[in-house]
Amino acid sequence: MDRVGIREQIRLLSVKRFEDMFQNDFLLTWEKKEEEISAVLATAEILRHMRLLKISTRAFHSGLAVAIFRDKSTRTRYSFRAASDLLGLSVDEIDEEKSQVAHGETVRETANMLSFLTEVIGIRDDIFLGQGNRYMRDVAVAVSEGYESGVLPTRPTVLNLQCDIDHPTQTLADLLHLINFFGGVERLKGKKIAVTWAYSPSYGKPLSVPQGLIGLMTRFGMNVFLAHPEGYDLLSSVEERALKNASNSGGSFIKTDSMEDAFDGADIVYPKSWAPFSVMEERTELLQKGDLKGMAVLEKRALNLNKKYSDWECSEELLKKTKNGNALYMHCLPADISGVSCERGEVQASVFERYRLLTYREAGYKPYIIAAIILLSRLNNPAELLLKCLEGFRGTED
Amino acid sequence: MDRVGIREQIRLLSVKRFEDMFQNDFLLTWEKKEEEISAVLATAEILRHMRLLKISTRAFHSGLAVAIFRDKSTRTRYSFRAASDLLGLSVDEIDEEKSQVAHGETVRETANMLSFLTEVIGIRDDIFLGQGNRYMRDVAVAVSEGYESGVLPTRPTVLNLQCDIDHPTQTLADLLHLINFFGGVERLKGKKIAVTWAYSPSYGKPLSVPQGLIGLMTRFGMNVFLAHPEGYDLLSSVEERALKNASNSGGSFIKTDSMEDAFDGADIVYPKSWAPFSVMEERTELLQKGDLKGMAVLEKRALNLNKKYSDWECSEELLKKTKNGNALYMHCLPADISGVSCERGEVQASVFERYRLLTYREAGYKPYIIAAIILLSRLNNPAELLLKCLEGFRGTED
Amino acid sequence: MDRVGIREQIRLLSVKRFEDMFQNDFLLTWEKKEEEISAVLATAEILRHMRLLKISTRAFHSGLAVAIFRDKSTRTRYSFRAASDLLGLSVDEIDEEKSQVAHGETVRETANMLSFLTEVIGIRDDIFLGQGNRYMRDVAVAVSEGYESGVLPTRPTVLNLQCDIDHPTQTLADLLHLINFFGGVERLKGKKIAVTWAYSPSYGKPLSVPQGLIGLMTRFGMNVFLAHPEGYDLLSSVEERALKNASNSGGSFIKTDSMEDAFDGADIVYPKSWAPFSVMEERTELLQKGDLKGMAVLEKRALNLNKKYSDWECSEELLKKTKNGNALYMHCLPADISGVSCERGEVQASVFERYRLLTYREAGYKPYIIAAIILLSRLNNPAELLLKCLEGFRGTED
Repeated sequence: MDRVGIREQIRLLSVKRFEDMFQNDFLLTWEKKEEEISAVLATAEILRHMRLLKISTRAFHSGLAVAIFRDKSTRTRYSFRAASDLLGLSVDEIDEEKSQVAHGETVRETANMLSFLTEVIGIRDDIFLGQGNRYMRDVAVAVSEGYESGVLPTRPTVLNLQCDIDHPTQTLADLLHLINFFGGVERLKGKKIAVTWAYSPSYGKPLSVPQGLIGLMTRFGMNVFLAHPEGYDLLSSVEERALKNASNSGGSFIKTDSMEDAFDGADIVYPKSWAPFSVMEERTELLQKGDLKGMAVLEKRALNLNKKYSDWECSEELLKKTKNGNALYMHCLPADISGVSCERGEVQASVFERYRLLTYREAGYKPYIIAAIILLSRLNNPAELLLKCLEGFRGTED
Repeated sequence: MDRVGIREQIRLLSVKRFEDMFQNDFLLTWEKKEEEISAVLATAEILRHMRLLKISTRAFHSGLAVAIFRDKSTRTRYSFRAASDLLGLSVDEIDEEKSQVAHGETVRETANMLSFLTEVIGIRDDIFLGQGNRYMRDVAVAVSEGYESGVLPTRPTVLNLQCDIDHPTQTLADLLHLINFFGGVERLKGKKIAVTWAYSPSYGKPLSVPQGLIGLMTRFGMNVFLAHPEGYDLLSSVEERALKNASNSGGSFIKTDSMEDAFDGADIVYPKSWAPFSVMEERTELLQKGDLKGMAVLEKRALNLNKKYSDWECSEELLKKTKNGNALYMHCLPADISGVSCERGEVQASVFERYRLLTYREAGYKPYIIAAIILLSRLNNPAELLLKCLEGFRGTED
Repeated sequence: MDRVGIREQIRLLSVKRFEDMFQNDFLLTWEKKEEEISAVLATAEILRHMRLLKISTRAFHSGLAVAIFRDKSTRTRYSFRAASDLLGLSVDEIDEEKSQVAHGETVRETANMLSFLTEVIGIRDDIFLGQGNRYMRDVAVAVSEGYESGVLPTRPTVLNLQCDIDHPTQTLADLLHLINFFGGVERLKGKKIAVTWAYSPSYGKPLSVPQGLIGLMTRFGMNVFLAHPEGYDLLSSVEERALKNASNSGGSFIKTDSMEDAFDGADIVYPKSWAPFSVMEERTELLQKGDLKGMAVLEKRALNLNKKYSDWECSEELLKKTKNGNALYMHCLPADISGVSCERGEVQASVFERYRLLTYREAGYKPYIIAAIILLSRLNNPAELLLKCLEGFRGTED
């Protein structure tokens, strides 16, 4: 896309209705209207193409992006940092073991202490079922109080970088990948996507990605199939949301306990392991009690349960059942690849290798999705600012 | 404050005499002249109001702010980072366990190795009594040598982010809070402030905040009461300084062993726990020997000593004794709140809750105090630069 | 150097032939042509003098500099960060224990995940013999694949911040120090430099510095003497390279097992400890197996071997044998100083003290060397950009 194309995309963005995003949080995709989701995707693409033309979008001339990671992360950490740099924000990453957060400080206080010059607080908290999203909302309430009482000059945006319920920056990157792969959001209508459980020799993987997928992809007229063995249910409230979405969008949401059924004729497959809900609940309790022995017992039991379903693997044979035998394979990475990263895992090595670079491309949208959300939630008129950036070209030329 | 008001404040700043701060360190407030303290406060307010109007003050177009934290920190870490970002400096935080500092390198060498492109070195070193401030001065001597011998192109400013003696960025934020709360520095004259020990179920808290407070607040004509149980003395040299300050400023510095006396008719109360001097001395020795068993014995003894004074709590009843029963409560945070963060602590929950947002506001001045000190110690003509920033508005508009 | 001088240096740079550096890696100095090495040195000096005049060279208006440190580091970490700041890049430092790199992710995937908006990836990996440089090349292959397949918008430069074979940013800083000390690169012709092993009470120090030195210094017509006790050989392939270099440049490369011979009449001495090749090989194997007991046995044996050569110390007496008794002493720091950082080490305290500030100055070139390599490998026309920076002065004045 050249400058003229970008200018036109900015014009199209400027007429969308997303004013409710301004000074608001981004915690669950299904709390956002269609036009807001659409504005995020459009802004991400504008930012990506401006970056390709080396047009600076460092729009902020001061301000921090605070990152609170309560779980390990490589790609989301990097994406948040890259997005912040793209917009001119400095990152302050809070290591909860080093800071006084560890001494039992209340969330309320810490949230304000980290917000005096902060534009956005990105949080990953996906370990504890029933806690991660709640923690984010506690932070949101705290900074609202700080802002309303004049303690904070602006109210920072709280951005979900993965919780126990949703992983919005991942699924929006997935969606943008689908749109670009198939040539437009309207082309997704009627497409069948198989969101299926897959075997992994590890346990305790969060439910946020499959939940986020069924909560988002059902909004675009797709036929979303959710497949998993008995006992590996997702949050029922998210499933209900998916059903409602599908009925609104003219798509469908269908559950099955057969990976084959889900793959049958599918345009897209997203096979990924997750823990049974009940195991996650038990794990949360044990973690909070610090019961290491109980954790070990649970792990053994959970792994044994997993093993019963070790044939839930995205194999060449299964793929043959998909549309023309070549459905688009997707994964949020890292995948458990049979014979590569583990003996037997989520996907056969030859399948993964064929789609590997496409999964990288999928991941590459995340920094722009994050930057787009920051821009739309911080600026009253982001289109105007993007135009200014387009005009004030000062990038490095080569 | 609007642009016209800011311009006037910059003009007032420009006629103050603070030229000795240029290329100098900031280690103890009582090493700074009244007009220098006043310039720091004025600059902090200018920066804060420019930020409120989204006027960029990223004055530095290259340069590092090095942070060396030898103790846990959330709010000072964040404040240093926010201040650096506000001025356009990149932060390099030294984790002493990861770097080769841990291998017994001399301070002299490391100080220079971290200074080649550095504008400021912020240090927190409050664990070892008799060591923290000395370490900062060792760093200062080292970078002076490096600068004078041509190794370093500029001599970075050494900034005390809390040592065993003083915590200047905290107490200056406290002072600015007082000035804004009461409506001007001249209104502080004659006000009674109670700096008192309070009970905490932990031990080993640094003495730097109460010491810093009596060393600073005595300079503005206030009546500073210092209250603590027997054996919880502060450094006598700081107390002597406080006496001298009070006599110069027309205020007073009075010691008492009764929290009630200190609160009686007070305009401001600052109840906060600290360790007895002798305990800190013993602890320093044990820490340096790595004597964990001795540490445990000392902890038990110190906590038992503390318990004798568990009635030193900022209660509703005590507050009633203050001026009109509603003295301004202050704390550097986090406070030990009875029934909230501990069974019994420094302050009753209902008292803290009533003043909670005011303590947040107090903390919110710290980034601007730090930025002001950096600006005044790095620039020959900071007023001129601030004017330029005021004219060159390029911030984000919303 | 004033602006006119800098302008002239930029003109001289612009006619050098270094176009092959563009979008390429920097892994070993001997893979670079003479004119490329010369361009790095010239650019480093231009950047240094622009910094001295407070001329901003923050040329990049977005982009990350990713640092992957697989070993402790103070000065190279700082130098990389300072260089990135100098050019306007934000640093993302990967802590391999915190990120998912630790979970057995393939290098290929991680390299791409960290490269979406990345200009340079700096890597230190000097622990495992035969692995560090190979790891860097794996990363390079991975990002090439990502770039060629359209996953990455640009192909980041992989920069060696010390591996098992070479330490190019160190030795280039050393070289620039020599050039400035002796007054020009042509003055190095015929100079004798003693790269010699020295005793240290530690073991397992990398071979990369001495290897890097003989691989680089032999290219400038110097007479390079390599001295070490029997069994402390360097990689034979690097020694062969040194011989070839010397023959091309009109210098020489001579091996000896006598520190005295190496010092005899030397203009420059670089006494530094390193581990015997065979010990490093064994250590690599034990480390990979996690054999702690084997490591302890090896350490004991290696230290005993070292002790046999504890007279390999850079003493006042030895120095007297050098040219006029005052050869230039060099070290990459930190040095093991007899009676200071250890009982007996690489250098006598009085010798080190006399040259201490010169070794600091030597270290001070590293940030500029790193920045120069980044600039030359990222920009098609770095000279033009430097001219623009020279014209667009917006720095802080004092």
